[in-house]
Amino acid sequence: MNKINVGIVGATGYVGMELVRILCNHPVFNITRLVSQSYIGKKFSSVYPSFRGIVDMECSERNIDDIAKNCEFVITALPHGVSAALIPALLLKGIRVLDHSADFRYRDVSVYEKAYKLSHPSPDLCADAIYGLPEIYRNSIYNAPLVANPGCYPTCSILGIAPLLSGNFIHKDSIIIDATSGVSGAGRTTDLAFQFCEAESNFKAYGVVGHRHTSEIEQELSFLAGEQLAVSFTPHLAPMKRGMLATIYSKLKTQMSAFELHQEYENFYKDEFFVRVLPLGEYPETKNVCGTNFIDISVFVDEHTGRAIALSAIDNLGKGASLQAIQTLNCMAGIPENSGLRQVAGIS
Amino acid sequence: MNKINVGIVGATGYVGMELVRILCNHPVFNITRLVSQSYIGKKFSSVYPSFRGIVDMECSERNIDDIAKNCEFVITALPHGVSAALIPALLLKGIRVLDHSADFRYRDVSVYEKAYKLSHPSPDLCADAIYGLPEIYRNSIYNAPLVANPGCYPTCSILGIAPLLSGNFIHKDSIIIDATSGVSGAGRTTDLAFQFCEAESNFKAYGVVGHRHTSEIEQELSFLAGEQLAVSFTPHLAPMKRGMLATIYSKLKTQMSAFELHQEYENFYKDEFFVRVLPLGEYPETKNVCGTNFIDISVFVDEHTGRAIALSAIDNLGKGASLQAIQTLNCMAGIPENSGLRQVAGIS
Amino acid sequence: MNKINVGIVGATGYVGMELVRILCNHPVFNITRLVSQSYIGKKFSSVYPSFRGIVDMECSERNIDDIAKNCEFVITALPHGVSAALIPALLLKGIRVLDHSADFRYRDVSVYEKAYKLSHPSPDLCADAIYGLPEIYRNSIYNAPLVANPGCYPTCSILGIAPLLSGNFIHKDSIIIDATSGVSGAGRTTDLAFQFCEAESNFKAYGVVGHRHTSEIEQELSFLAGEQLAVSFTPHLAPMKRGMLATIYSKLKTQMSAFELHQEYENFYKDEFFVRVLPLGEYPETKNVCGTNFIDISVFVDEHTGRAIALSAIDNLGKGASLQAIQTLNCMAGIPENSGLRQVAGIS
Amino acid sequence: MNKINVGIVGATGYVGMELVRILCNHPVFNITRLVSQSYIGKKFSSVYPSFRGIVDMECSERNIDDIAKNCEFVITALPHGVSAALIPALLLKGIRVLDHSADFRYRDVSVYEKAYKLSHPSPDLCADAIYGLPEIYRNSIYNAPLVANPGCYPTCSILGIAPLLSGNFIHKDSIIIDATSGVSGAGRTTDLAFQFCEAESNFKAYGVVGHRHTSEIEQELSFLAGEQLAVSFTPHLAPMKRGMLATIYSKLKTQMSAFELHQEYENFYKDEFFVRVLPLGEYPETKNVCGTNFIDISVFVDEHTGRAIALSAIDNLGKGASLQAIQTLNCMAGIPENSGLRQVAGIS
Repeated sequence: MNKINVGIVGATGYVGMELVRILCNHPVFNITRLVSQSYIGKKFSSVYPSFRGIVDMECSERNIDDIAKNCEFVITALPHGVSAALIPALLLKGIRVLDHSADFRYRDVSVYEKAYKLSHPSPDLCADAIYGLPEIYRNSIYNAPLVANPGCYPTCSILGIAPLLSGNFIHKDSIIIDATSGVSGAGRTTDLAFQFCEAESNFKAYGVVGHRHTSEIEQELSFLAGEQLAVSFTPHLAPMKRGMLATIYSKLKTQMSAFELHQEYENFYKDEFFVRVLPLGEYPETKNVCGTNFIDISVFVDEHTGRAIALSAIDNLGKGASLQAIQTLNCMAGIPENSGLRQVAGIS
Repeated sequence: MNKINVGIVGATGYVGMELVRILCNHPVFNITRLVSQSYIGKKFSSVYPSFRGIVDMECSERNIDDIAKNCEFVITALPHGVSAALIPALLLKGIRVLDHSADFRYRDVSVYEKAYKLSHPSPDLCADAIYGLPEIYRNSIYNAPLVANPGCYPTCSILGIAPLLSGNFIHKDSIIIDATSGVSGAGRTTDLAFQFCEAESNFKAYGVVGHRHTSEIEQELSFLAGEQLAVSFTPHLAPMKRGMLATIYSKLKTQMSAFELHQEYENFYKDEFFVRVLPLGEYPETKNVCGTNFIDISVFVDEHTGRAIALSAIDNLGKGASLQAIQTLNCMAGIPENSGLRQVAGIS
Repeated sequence: MNKINVGIVGATGYVGMELVRILCNHPVFNITRLVSQSYIGKKFSSVYPSFRGIVDMECSERNIDDIAKNCEFVITALPHGVSAALIPALLLKGIRVLDHSADFRYRDVSVYEKAYKLSHPSPDLCADAIYGLPEIYRNSIYNAPLVANPGCYPTCSILGIAPLLSGNFIHKDSIIIDATSGVSGAGRTTDLAFQFCEAESNFKAYGVVGHRHTSEIEQELSFLAGEQLAVSFTPHLAPMKRGMLATIYSKLKTQMSAFELHQEYENFYKDEFFVRVLPLGEYPETKNVCGTNFIDISVFVDEHTGRAIALSAIDNLGKGASLQAIQTLNCMAGIPENSGLRQVAGIS
Repeated sequence: MNKINVGIVGATGYVGMELVRILCNHPVFNITRLVSQSYIGKKFSSVYPSFRGIVDMECSERNIDDIAKNCEFVITALPHGVSAALIPALLLKGIRVLDHSADFRYRDVSVYEKAYKLSHPSPDLCADAIYGLPEIYRNSIYNAPLVANPGCYPTCSILGIAPLLSGNFIHKDSIIIDATSGVSGAGRTTDLAFQFCEAESNFKAYGVVGHRHTSEIEQELSFLAGEQLAVSFTPHLAPMKRGMLATIYSKLKTQMSAFELHQEYENFYKDEFFVRVLPLGEYPETKNVCGTNFIDISVFVDEHTGRAIALSAIDNLGKGASLQAIQTLNCMAGIPENSGLRQVAGIS
């Protein structure tokens, strides 16, 4: 099979690095450009020595012509706002783009601009960009020129609660999402708060009320519910590099057993390779999905309060970022969605 | 000042060890007996080598006469059910007892028996035992012969939400407590699930629906609310030794600002040394209370959903167990509550 | 290409699990039997939920006929002594065996018996078993019926110092190996010492003087040196799941620069895919090899004391156990040594 | 007893913070000034929220007159070079100074200047400064105006090997010190290398050959040996916040048993409260000394190579920095050396 050329723009952040880690052994894609403004001319393996002998390619500059000449697909892993300024030029060259920033995740540009406190550089493209959650939008992704990779918390939350909303089992104003992420969610930063001595053995909430992923979650849950809804979303930081768990509370409209809800979940996801609805009564654990594109989901019913409690676990850099991007890229390229993505979590 | 003699029964578990750690430098109490059936005749410092040179006392057997002869106060840190069988004999000898098990925390014995799946060996004592949360029951503790030390999750949850219930600001059927504990909450166990390679870098929920602390929390919140209420409570396990955070959601009855709620919290706890209501907008972090008896609390308002979100952080072995026990012991002995408890968390 | 059938005996320990993790996506090998006495009839994915959907095969019992009927190759990951009792029967059936225990690593049975305090059940096989370090014994491995997978500390130590001994640059009585391992080296145990609350944030030495890997290291270093030698070897335990670093001190016979020694190392390993001699002055870090079969090596010269200092890093479960086993299996099967072994370490 | 006023200059680094943590509950010292150029006018508890309610004092500027008016003793926890420029003015005011930097640790200024690549601002003071290791220099410390607090690696190494050198049991050119530190040794830095995602689950050597603590160790070991000697010293970084272990190899001059050497150690340290020679065969572990001023020491004999192996464990911020500073301060003030320093390590 002919290899398909792909470039990564923003290759030396954690999301970029994780893309390279999977793509360098992918059966179909071939990395042809690693763009990194901070490391132009430097070997990728000098930035990340774990790649020595496997990916010694030099990082190149953000040159549209050069990228266009060498790539059919481009994944952009850039800060919010920077992506939106670059992508129109790539699309004009006929490149199909998967963008990891939040820039093209929103149907309503004003919601984006409020959440990210930015003026959108390319608002016209937003309407046609597809939200890159293959389990929901697969059919639109196949031929899309521009796909927006979802955020980590939204991926974990949306897939965790989708069967409840889709089946109309819950009160739509009752949703509370309590979620926890590993530290890599903050990216390759040097902030004091993410130093080893500050973050290790510590647990805290942050961004209570108004975390920007709230609006992204609400957009997609409203779409699933068929009406506008609002959620309470609270992110937490746990002392681990990777992994994310969402614990999602909602009020059941009518009495249902855990067994019935579990069957609804199994049925909803029965054709999804990457969504694993666990046996009734088992718990997702982040260690079981780390380094992979799986999402593990459980559902419980608290009969004495009438609530459903859904639990979903992903790797924030896996299904929450880079590996989901590759699942979507597989989808865009018309190859099996799990190509190059059959990794299993070990002891890590 | 004359020293007061205290014995610890169940001294070699983590709660017992932490009691010894603080009491061995306490200005008033003097440890006279370290009872441990597993280590009779062994030096305490051979079980915990960190105590070498400080606490080399030998562990002794569970002999009532010997304990009575040597102790005015006894703290029992024993498994549930075992405490209740031992304590009547201690009380008969005139010893004042602080029990760390759940055996005497419940007003209604049947609730205890259902939650702990035990037949209570001394149900008659339950009515007179005091729930050892000094911030709520201080006046009853002073002269009580038997005090029951609260559970870690209940301590963190009750103090986190008390001002909201006490002020009648929230709907009583709307309370959701989402809490996370460090691994030491499981005690000095050898279960596979708590092995380093299984627990490190992992995050999960457990005991969803029906964790036995739910009933203890509901008993105390119902007391504060003046009516029976039910809560959803979900515990999680984070990869750290110590620390606990509760994120508590509830629906406000009327619109209130975060500023107003914050003032209610400050006022409610204005005389409490160990309860630190943080400045508006700041977050509790478990690292700031580890090794101490402090509880750090914040409150937020999510205006777009009408919910209050309270956050409370403790050390599960500190305010959640051993250090709270010493606060209560100070109270029982009529000395300042913070005697020997002024430790501050460092980098740990 | 036809798949080659392989069975794993002792599949549910950490070494076995890691073998399954890599082999389930291997381009040539096909897992046909997962033997585990503890989990007969249980799905492998019920023991390790991370494998759900990928390896749901049931574990089977240790039945020689059944194994022989279904496997061309068998990897045994069993306790010392147990392997040696089982392997003769497998070999009689014509199965080629890669044994992970220490049972067949020794040329001199009496050294083994002294180190492991066991009477060897099959001493006759020892003479023909090959020590499975492909970088040294590749040519003997190709057709061997029985290969003994080296220990983790020996692999890390031998490859770290081989160029110095082979080039005759050092005093042979001057070797000191100071090494550190992650906790998974202790296996899937429930000992108190390896509990999260005991092992996290802790560093210690163990097995000082007389750790049994000392004799294995001395056997191979003596072979390389062409004369019997003795080393001081001190293992340490670091609070991390995986990873091993050896810091190896020796006295130079004559003055040599770091530059010269570095060239010797580069030359010695110039054809080895899995041995990465780092650029002069760079340090191996365990995170750069975790989850992989790479060994990263540096060499320094301490001119003011006349010593060479070699540093080598591996994943104790990777090049130190399971992935090296697969490298050797590739070798035995006559396929490229890096088949299925091109993983790169990410953030884990 | 009258309180003695002490000021801390450089109070908001990790060493400063740890000084405040102990001194705020010290029975004799009273903190009167917390000097921090970065946080002038800010509450100390706003920099470190764990101190809320205990140390809410405001940080002040580096004003000599103000310090002199308010402090009898000053501890300086400043970067190398900065201390030396400030201290003469403090001494002129009659303040007694304990300096945590390396500036006054060296007898030979040229060795300092080479190791630290600085021109010493106050070379004249070096001759009279006392090296603040009370176990060795206690008698000189009592009345010294200026004491230099030792480095963490030197403290751990010197005390670990002192009985061997003092007893003249080893070849003086045979000493190799292989040591490991927790991450807090790097201070309150924001370097990428010490970020949680870079440092967690990782182990590495650094500063191989030429780490500047080598010269400090050599100065003191040469003093103990009565002749100039050189050592090989290799520091490592382990994924934990606190703790340090030194594994020290040397060649015995004559055959001695571990039992004999152990007695020498016990005898050498028989009057030292903070030095705990462990029972023969037991291992120091960093967790047993964390948060304390203890150093735990073992000694082994490797008969088949003729080497002694000494192991010593400290908390790099405890006996390796702040708590040793307070031990020395107690000594300078003529109060018992363990005043305020009887903390025991728990689960942390």
